Amino acid sequence: MKESKENAVISKATIDRLPLYYRTLKLSQEEGIEIISSDELGRKIGVTPEQIRKDLSAFGEFGKKGVGYYVRELMRNIGEILGLNRKWNIAICGVGHLGWALANYANFSPQGFHLQAIFDIDPDKIGRYINEVEIFHVSRMKEIVTERDIQIGIITVPMEFAQSTATQLVEAGIKGIWNFAPIKINVPDTIHVVSEDLSVGLSSMSYYLSRQNG
Amino acid sequence: MKESKENAVISKATIDRLPLYYRTLKLSQEEGIEIISSDELGRKIGVTPEQIRKDLSAFGEFGKKGVGYYVRELMRNIGEILGLNRKWNIAICGVGHLGWALANYANFSPQGFHLQAIFDIDPDKIGRYINEVEIFHVSRMKEIVTERDIQIGIITVPMEFAQSTATQLVEAGIKGIWNFAPIKINVPDTIHVVSEDLSVGLSSMSYYLSRQNG
Repeated sequence: MKESKENAVISKATIDRLPLYYRTLKLSQEEGIEIISSDELGRKIGVTPEQIRKDLSAFGEFGKKGVGYYVRELMRNIGEILGLNRKWNIAICGVGHLGWALANYANFSPQGFHLQAIFDIDPDKIGRYINEVEIFHVSRMKEIVTERDIQIGIITVPMEFAQSTATQLVEAGIKGIWNFAPIKINVPDTIHVVSEDLSVGLSSMSYYLSRQNG
Repeated sequence: MKESKENAVISKATIDRLPLYYRTLKLSQEEGIEIISSDELGRKIGVTPEQIRKDLSAFGEFGKKGVGYYVRELMRNIGEILGLNRKWNIAICGVGHLGWALANYANFSPQGFHLQAIFDIDPDKIGRYINEVEIFHVSRMKEIVTERDIQIGIITVPMEFAQSTATQLVEAGIKGIWNFAPIKINVPDTIHVVSEDLSVGLSSMSYYLSRQNG
């Protein structure tokens, strides 16, 4: 596995499916499933078994023909590929309801994402804590990001402040931005941006309900 | 287009990519782009041009060879396929920070999703309004869902109440559930469930940052 992992050229589409594989394997493991076929895994995620075999073959040999994938082993391997065995320090920018909800989100930490700081501009919020993490004024961003070795910034500020927040995060030395504001932010190519649009989930639902109701 | 649209058997993976196409086309349109190639569209979304051509061919002919896709036309067609030209009534169950954030989320309504009711059990919240939408006690769910013709329920209650809320929604007559609780909910096969895991966005980020930092 080591060889192919390092040398393979892997498409972004494959990479974007890996977290879904990881998550589905984790749920399967919690249900007590030890071995899973690509058919079964595909059915749960909504991709074809061929797609799964193709995706996973880019990284090496994970399954046994006619048997399936060993859930725990495959999960550990995908987690390793995704870098989930590493520890990532994250910061949230903007303490509205969404920022607050993310600060309380239980599923980040088990996957290696550790909230180290929260930034806002509201004097009433500065110095307060959410889940034992302090809220700092944005003017201290560079200092705190450096000091706490924060690699990922999450943008949950109102849309009109998203670009300036992104620029500040980049200047502070952040490597990746997870943007919840519904606009495209401009940052240097070296910064990896993931844009979240919460309405995407509803849109695919709309398709299925349209079909169902005729 | 009408013919192929009705008769085609379309994979779930394709359906799940359509909202991404729609969203990217919308952003392109806002940037003033009128024609887009499958190369360019693929680059923005992170799938191969072949995948895009394959996905869209399932629905009919949208592009001009050697020219590209007409952004506005393709957007309208995908919107139609997704049922976004229809009006969907939605309800939010659970007014924590996430429920509150979703109730304020600006991007639902332009896509045809209209928040009609919010449910909670906290007496301090019942009767209050978020963005002109009333918060009702869950005991009134069936009555309100019927009266306001609500088709989609969003679950933002704490994990331990997610299953009972799902059961209540189904009994109230809902057709689709968008579940933010990090557990698998059990509902009849006729109900379409979309599960949201907010940590998926961070996981693919982790992959890219791992590679970048060596």
